Amino acid sequence: MTRFTQFTVTALALVAPAFASCDYGTHLYPREHTVPVSTFGYNDLIGPLNWYSLNKTANELCATGQHQSPIVLDSSIATAHGDSISFTVDSYPFGAEFENLGSTVEVPVNGTLKAGGKDYKLAQFHFHTPSEHRIDSEYHPMEIHFVFSTPDKSTAVVSFLVDLGVPNLLLSSVFQNINEIATPGETTLTGPLLFAALENHLKSNAIFTYSGSLTTPPCTEGVDWYISAQPLQIDTATYGKVKDVIKFNARYTQNKLGGVNLLQNIANELK
Amino acid sequence: MTRFTQFTVTALALVAPAFASCDYGTHLYPREHTVPVSTFGYNDLIGPLNWYSLNKTANELCATGQHQSPIVLDSSIATAHGDSISFTVDSYPFGAEFENLGSTVEVPVNGTLKAGGKDYKLAQFHFHTPSEHRIDSEYHPMEIHFVFSTPDKSTAVVSFLVDLGVPNLLLSSVFQNINEIATPGETTLTGPLLFAALENHLKSNAIFTYSGSLTTPPCTEGVDWYISAQPLQIDTATYGKVKDVIKFNARYTQNKLGGVNLLQNIANELK
Repeated sequence: MTRFTQFTVTALALVAPAFASCDYGTHLYPREHTVPVSTFGYNDLIGPLNWYSLNKTANELCATGQHQSPIVLDSSIATAHGDSISFTVDSYPFGAEFENLGSTVEVPVNGTLKAGGKDYKLAQFHFHTPSEHRIDSEYHPMEIHFVFSTPDKSTAVVSFLVDLGVPNLLLSSVFQNINEIATPGETTLTGPLLFAALENHLKSNAIFTYSGSLTTPPCTEGVDWYISAQPLQIDTATYGKVKDVIKFNARYTQNKLGGVNLLQNIANELK
Repeated sequence: MTRFTQFTVTALALVAPAFASCDYGTHLYPREHTVPVSTFGYNDLIGPLNWYSLNKTANELCATGQHQSPIVLDSSIATAHGDSISFTVDSYPFGAEFENLGSTVEVPVNGTLKAGGKDYKLAQFHFHTPSEHRIDSEYHPMEIHFVFSTPDKSTAVVSFLVDLGVPNLLLSSVFQNINEIATPGETTLTGPLLFAALENHLKSNAIFTYSGSLTTPPCTEGVDWYISAQPLQIDTATYGKVKDVIKFNARYTQNKLGGVNLLQNIANELK
């Protein structure tokens, strides 16, 4: 999961009229902002095992937190029915901005979540490949995170795992121009985005729910996770296109909730 | 990579006549041995971040070694032409034993490798999903390790990355009965195994070469790696079947060769 792009959402609102004009998809309109490229990554000394050292104050929980995400989802994790939460995302019939942050590719969009007695607003959705959460130890080729927050800074993530199979209309449209943002910092437009089928998918299946963390620095805890237990499907060609751009961006699974942080553990063991 | 199954190869030789008889694939012949199920895994406290603690003497290098595998393969890693080594695997026209070790699925087979001035003998090949090595940071859905050793205990691994695409005759045949070994400890037979196309693939492309380690406990170093730079392809349906059984079994990528071990590093940083 990445930082919130509230400023990006604002910038998007400013340029939105151009999206609906004849400039749609032409890249002729001026960009109102630049996309900040992440300083963390998934390899070597900028990878997950060293996020703490990148900023020991801000990222302390990455190495010491005991409710860290992602985790293995099994019978020890609570489930509920998807219709116990209300998840809606605005339509973008002319597409939305699509950004390469280096650590992921992200689409800033508006939407709402009512869950656990709280009202959240959507900031963005983004992608991990392979999946970060595993169901009964099995990973999936992709995972999508819709990141929500409340005015008092509570965070919730609605997550979908993605398997290989039939094409998914929404995902095909999201990724139609991904080749145009192969370099971190680049932006383009998605195709038309309509979320009714995705909202129905969530509503029609069980969801895993638990309190965990952001899966990227600063690994903040107290994040409420709502993960559809039924994976979506995507076609293999689209998956390949996405993987070419994102490459590997999944944090390793963390210890069981409440157990010692796996990095704190190895530090204790090696001393 | 897993432990050598020299005893299994021996056992296979004992039952080999049955493989060529009308009992082929029928499970009617008696098993000569049981398959030892791995005590390490890829989740929680038996996962890669805690392999050291599972046996601090045997597995010390997992947390302190500075030439650990897998790594990111990029322009800093030496390449050679595949025809600079000689890789041959015996044919098994009636199939070979196929074992679920818990940590991977493995086929004990005979073969030879001449590389770096040494003559090696093949012990087995096995699978990781997703891939352990990444080329220019990109992972692949699968990786195959052919594990060789010399009488004086030198180890070499010939590795193939696997992308999604067209069916691969050899891999389709290897995996034809994988549903019969869904539980760790179970064994079955592969379909017919003929390696000429694989040998030619290795010979016809560049290979990455470096000195690293076993990617599983005890993480022994001094292992010579020979990794084909050109991925094979496998069809999506077969990949799904394999992933259902193996689930996730890739160690996270290690630090650059000669750099501090990422676990030693976090221990140093957290104290």
